[in-house]
Amino acid sequence: MEPRSTIAPWASTAAQERLSTLEDLHTENTTVQVVESVSQALTDYQQRIDHGIVLYAGTNMLSPNVEALHDTSLSTRPALGWPGEKVQTAVDEIEHLEVITTRQVAQSLHGTYAEVRYLSATMANLAAYIAFTEPGDTIAVLSPEAGGHASHQQILGTAGIRGLTVEHLPYSPSALDIDAGEIDDFVRRARPKLIVVGGSVTLFPHHLGPIREAADQVGAVLLYDASHTAGLIAAGHYQDPLAEGADVVTFSTYKTYAGPAGGAAVTNSPEYAERLADAAYPTMLSNYDPARLGPLAVAAREAVEQSPSWAAPTIEYASELAANLNALGLIVVGRRLGYTRSHQCVIDAQDIGGGPAAVRRLERDRIYAGACRLPWQSPGTPPEGIRLGTQEFVRRGAGFDTIADLARLVHQSLTTTGTEPLTATRKLRGRLSTDLWGRPAPAPTPEWGTV
Amino acid sequence: MEPRSTIAPWASTAAQERLSTLEDLHTENTTVQVVESVSQALTDYQQRIDHGIVLYAGTNMLSPNVEALHDTSLSTRPALGWPGEKVQTAVDEIEHLEVITTRQVAQSLHGTYAEVRYLSATMANLAAYIAFTEPGDTIAVLSPEAGGHASHQQILGTAGIRGLTVEHLPYSPSALDIDAGEIDDFVRRARPKLIVVGGSVTLFPHHLGPIREAADQVGAVLLYDASHTAGLIAAGHYQDPLAEGADVVTFSTYKTYAGPAGGAAVTNSPEYAERLADAAYPTMLSNYDPARLGPLAVAAREAVEQSPSWAAPTIEYASELAANLNALGLIVVGRRLGYTRSHQCVIDAQDIGGGPAAVRRLERDRIYAGACRLPWQSPGTPPEGIRLGTQEFVRRGAGFDTIADLARLVHQSLTTTGTEPLTATRKLRGRLSTDLWGRPAPAPTPEWGTV
Repeated sequence: MEPRSTIAPWASTAAQERLSTLEDLHTENTTVQVVESVSQALTDYQQRIDHGIVLYAGTNMLSPNVEALHDTSLSTRPALGWPGEKVQTAVDEIEHLEVITTRQVAQSLHGTYAEVRYLSATMANLAAYIAFTEPGDTIAVLSPEAGGHASHQQILGTAGIRGLTVEHLPYSPSALDIDAGEIDDFVRRARPKLIVVGGSVTLFPHHLGPIREAADQVGAVLLYDASHTAGLIAAGHYQDPLAEGADVVTFSTYKTYAGPAGGAAVTNSPEYAERLADAAYPTMLSNYDPARLGPLAVAAREAVEQSPSWAAPTIEYASELAANLNALGLIVVGRRLGYTRSHQCVIDAQDIGGGPAAVRRLERDRIYAGACRLPWQSPGTPPEGIRLGTQEFVRRGAGFDTIADLARLVHQSLTTTGTEPLTATRKLRGRLSTDLWGRPAPAPTPEWGTV
Repeated sequence: MEPRSTIAPWASTAAQERLSTLEDLHTENTTVQVVESVSQALTDYQQRIDHGIVLYAGTNMLSPNVEALHDTSLSTRPALGWPGEKVQTAVDEIEHLEVITTRQVAQSLHGTYAEVRYLSATMANLAAYIAFTEPGDTIAVLSPEAGGHASHQQILGTAGIRGLTVEHLPYSPSALDIDAGEIDDFVRRARPKLIVVGGSVTLFPHHLGPIREAADQVGAVLLYDASHTAGLIAAGHYQDPLAEGADVVTFSTYKTYAGPAGGAAVTNSPEYAERLADAAYPTMLSNYDPARLGPLAVAAREAVEQSPSWAAPTIEYASELAANLNALGLIVVGRRLGYTRSHQCVIDAQDIGGGPAAVRRLERDRIYAGACRLPWQSPGTPPEGIRLGTQEFVRRGAGFDTIADLARLVHQSLTTTGTEPLTATRKLRGRLSTDLWGRPAPAPTPEWGTV
């Protein structure tokens, strides 16, 4: 018999199978039962994270300050418009938070103006489409194979909301960057209103000079999506997009930036800043969730201040991990270029069953990573890479003395079928004594601690 | 000298004045200073709310369960796609939360399918535009004067993002509803792909029958925006939009629904549900902030269960308050119809200086309300109404024995210039002893308690 989900009866068989299992498990129908069920999920999730190794590149662990200053009761308070002309009353403190957060976020990305109200980086990118394009215009972005994000794409992507035609920038798989030799001809032909660089797989800085020159040929706005690297940029350990020619930087505030969920944009142009602000309010947003503001201001400042304690070792850890994985026989992307200059490294998993199967094997051994597409694979085929990120493991207290063991563990998990890797995960996790803020590592519980 | 904001030098003089004052005050430049500043803002804000009377209709006080189950660390964990085929690993508990939240939200609005991932109601409406229209299509919505929300509008509104043409539904100011006699002709002429009813000023249920019939003439989808009334609908104390003919209900999850910030959509049609799900992911969202899920599931269930303790008295309080205000000589909208059947009532402030000035006077006396437009005012003129909502004051413990005093206080605040109303606010606030959950009212502090 076919599984039949009541929640999404149109979903794939795999999804309906999982959904119907969960639907049978969860028949809560009183507030007390719902509260118990939610509490259990939150406790179980914490256990899962505490006793595994998170190498997913697009996540992070919040600092004690960022977590403590999130006052969810503020989420219900709309405060529309600029300070001094807000639609609501009783908003003095929200105006205070808007000012310090806007300033801290702008400073952290070395820009003059910031828009911090976007609910996600995807919405920040949509705001840029609203600000700089009209329906029917063409924009140019990185393909998914070149690391471009879903929010840049036309088909099943956010750019399609605006009715934009999306063309893919010429990309050099050997340079792992936009093809500087072809960019000029491409832009003259495609005549994009907006060029978007940066993305979700991002090992090396872009050479922005040739892209800036090409954009100027056709009057295109150059947007740098720093969702994955904003925390490294703030720390001064990655490229400086605005100084190198980008008009606008958009980014996710919860990945390397380590703040609350949400998005932001930074620019040096008052004209672009005004357009991005108008796109936020009144076009896209009424309530923008002011509870995000305080934690975001703190995250912005911490991203700058934790440069030596976190950003520098995070990048060095990624690069060393890549070298170790390569030495163990895995194929690591970018060997000729030094593997990576970000918090990410990428394994080519073509010969070990492809990305999705590989990340499931890692999950079995409590190592959490993500599949990704590779520059040389064909569009429409399943992801052939594994993307690892070191940003969270370093925050949890992993020193350089753990790199060799982590590489062996990842290699073993990807290439064996026994339970040895799970034992090794437990041991390695046990070696972390205190996190970046000196707090002791969580004690293993019997249920999770034994294998 | 002109005030000069560094944050928004393009903003109005009023905005720049307030901004530059705040910018001079806030020169934090270390993490420690930012943390102190944010903490101070949060403390001050709590004092402001605790010692005032919140009558703003589009906000709420969270229940202890909803607040306690918001685990902000979950915000950094993306979990894209359906359970069983997610892009990320380590998502078992997020899948659990997705299932119970989807089910609870669907049940609460008496529907079969729910999409709970939208980051706001505005984004839920944008998802409906993505699901049911193409750029260039026409939609029909309520005008701002008839209570239509900014997210329904074309100019400086969310519908404009999609490149839609927006026409305003015929509205009867005397019936405070869509004009049933004109709707048919209007729809045959405008031929909208989507009809949106419901809005931000919403005193009475819509008569949906004629609108449903008109929609069927041209094959339009009928969307009911229950942002302000979803909690009353869940409680069974307002109309039931899906049973009465709406195809889809969208709503804000933090107003009468009393959950975390965010939006949702509910429908009985699997075809529409699938389109709304595809619009959420992958089109509009990557991370959707899973920290919202647990509190939302609880809020959904509480909205149903608190029907007798909260929803019924909230509506009765609003209706009685309106009658009392009218008896004191204020002009209250909808007198002939019984003023209101929702949590809102509206004062016509044309003769007392208009809406914005009136809500500033109320703010001076620590009564927090909002300005709104009236059905008989001209587009483009400043709001001439004051919208009051009773949902939060009742949750804070206000019984029917406070109605007469609150009406006198509001009347006095709007019509006198002395400090008597502020004293009265303090006294009335002091009469609230315990909130809806039996917790004692916050003790007044000297700074706020004295006038």
